[in-house]
Amino acid sequence: MREALSLATQAQWLCPPNPAVGCVIVLPDGGVISAHTQATGQAHAEAQALRMLAAQGQSARGATVYVTLEPCSHHGRTPPCADALVREGVARVVVAVEDPNPLVAGQGIERLRAAGIQVDVGLLADEAREINLGFFSRMQRGQPWVRLKVAASLDGRTALDDGRSQWITSPAARADGHAWRARAGAVLTGIGTVLDDNPRLDVREVDTPRQPLRVIVDSRLETPPSARILPPPGDVLVYHAEDHPARRAALEAVGAELVCLPGAGGKVDLGAMLADLARRGVNELHVEAGHKLNGSFVREDRVDEYLIYLAPKLIGQGREMMRFGPLDGLDDAPALEFLDVQRVGPDLRLRARPPGRDRF
Amino acid sequence: MREALSLATQAQWLCPPNPAVGCVIVLPDGGVISAHTQATGQAHAEAQALRMLAAQGQSARGATVYVTLEPCSHHGRTPPCADALVREGVARVVVAVEDPNPLVAGQGIERLRAAGIQVDVGLLADEAREINLGFFSRMQRGQPWVRLKVAASLDGRTALDDGRSQWITSPAARADGHAWRARAGAVLTGIGTVLDDNPRLDVREVDTPRQPLRVIVDSRLETPPSARILPPPGDVLVYHAEDHPARRAALEAVGAELVCLPGAGGKVDLGAMLADLARRGVNELHVEAGHKLNGSFVREDRVDEYLIYLAPKLIGQGREMMRFGPLDGLDDAPALEFLDVQRVGPDLRLRARPPGRDRF
Repeated sequence: MREALSLATQAQWLCPPNPAVGCVIVLPDGGVISAHTQATGQAHAEAQALRMLAAQGQSARGATVYVTLEPCSHHGRTPPCADALVREGVARVVVAVEDPNPLVAGQGIERLRAAGIQVDVGLLADEAREINLGFFSRMQRGQPWVRLKVAASLDGRTALDDGRSQWITSPAARADGHAWRARAGAVLTGIGTVLDDNPRLDVREVDTPRQPLRVIVDSRLETPPSARILPPPGDVLVYHAEDHPARRAALEAVGAELVCLPGAGGKVDLGAMLADLARRGVNELHVEAGHKLNGSFVREDRVDEYLIYLAPKLIGQGREMMRFGPLDGLDDAPALEFLDVQRVGPDLRLRARPPGRDRF
Repeated sequence: MREALSLATQAQWLCPPNPAVGCVIVLPDGGVISAHTQATGQAHAEAQALRMLAAQGQSARGATVYVTLEPCSHHGRTPPCADALVREGVARVVVAVEDPNPLVAGQGIERLRAAGIQVDVGLLADEAREINLGFFSRMQRGQPWVRLKVAASLDGRTALDDGRSQWITSPAARADGHAWRARAGAVLTGIGTVLDDNPRLDVREVDTPRQPLRVIVDSRLETPPSARILPPPGDVLVYHAEDHPARRAALEAVGAELVCLPGAGGKVDLGAMLADLARRGVNELHVEAGHKLNGSFVREDRVDEYLIYLAPKLIGQGREMMRFGPLDGLDDAPALEFLDVQRVGPDLRLRARPPGRDRF
């Protein structure tokens, strides 16, 4: 199963919105074949492993199958994997964790058991769930797993007062940040960052077979139609709160899709936006915004995970990571837990989550 | 030598202003005896090891002696260790690093060699120097090694806007911070912190045989004579820039020592202060101040090492770590290097230094 989990992690930037799954088939003669989910629309892990087996002229009859997520039981873009395993006549299937997809949710396991296959569920379930936390979030909470990325100096500054931020962190940290972008279903920023930095927000520093959807939170539709983030290429969604027909038409003319979701105070309704993004199949939402939009996400407790790069330098006066508060007291400070700490080149990468946030 | 270095670290909070030294004596029969520097005014490591040997009725004749710092050649509070080693008739002395004290500086080694003892110098020299970096700094730069400690939230805030900072970090981080205080020759703060927090600034959370000198930077002599930091017990130095005879008399009446070192802009001359502290025998200066004094230290490039505790919480609006700037551009941001990163309870402890700062 550890091998299957390791394979699953390799599929993370390949297959969204599908979950990333690893599958290891152990044949009765001791032979082993393994695979992970292929690119979106192509084979699931089990189907890929069976196909590789067939290509070698072998059968999975009597085999034990280790799979990191319950085999699917429904016709999606591909036929059900549970049926394929039954057809092959495997003896036993070891499943790390049940599929949270209501279209599956135990039915894959039932189908296998009904065919007389021994099924064991729960081996390394937490690790398996962690790999697809965004998929679990979308299926069980109806919203993406929100990861907020910040690059800052050791004293917590993300830019000079005038917004200049290129570059605080190292090329190594930027490449690592792009790897996190690559596995996300969507990369989101705010109008402030569009105007200050004019970013493309695509994945460039690492190889990737797909580009995430790009999303702008732009309450008053101030994105210039010449902004580098806009298509072509790729898809861009603009969430806004006020309607301005001329500006809307200009952005639609360059290929952006606009969604009006007015919330309190003339701002975009972030909760409705997350629900909409989940409906569009976004498992992980990667937020790279400025202090104001970051502050809104924090204030509304919408951040599931912080991904913070700290460069070993000091900026002093400058932009803060997130603008919110003032708090009434220190007991009101949003509490997190450090998940892991790594050196990335000369910088540090810290990951933190609100305690228990991944339990849904 | 590794054993001797490990012993030396145990002496770090015992023996300031003396350097912390470890000594391992290997006898011709394979017997081993080892010791570290004792409390200030008591035996050096070599003398202590020889004394322990004598107490067992043994002699060091023909022994090999591993010592992390060159044996002293001068009469200080104790007689010269080099002479004692000659008298004992040891065969060989392995020295990690030469003593930077101009009263020694190679003379201890010369004395040993003159007596026909084989002396090898340089084994694990960097590690040995690191243990006594404050002592080397005082001897070679005429100023203490300045370590600036900050406890902050993940977003770089040290307090709410009104100065409330109790508590951002965990008891584990506070105890760790007290261990760093304990090895310092002096703990320094500013008048802002005295007025905001009224700290005692002594070592409480760890056992210690000695209390560091406490130091206040208080340009206008605003420290209230009732401040908890003032004696009794212990010694307190107040550096000021303006003279106010009545306030001075009130602080002297409670036992503080006052030093007037006026610098630019009506502030205390920090460079002159560091030189004065070195003359008083301070090897390591532990700074626990607020954003203003921290900013002055950073602006004048007087920080040799940053000791930063980050709690996994967010504060938003609040006090920054250090107030300086604005910079003209990001290239002007003071550059550091991360030295080590550790989890301390739920918090992180980061240590960083300006590159090459420890090469003097």
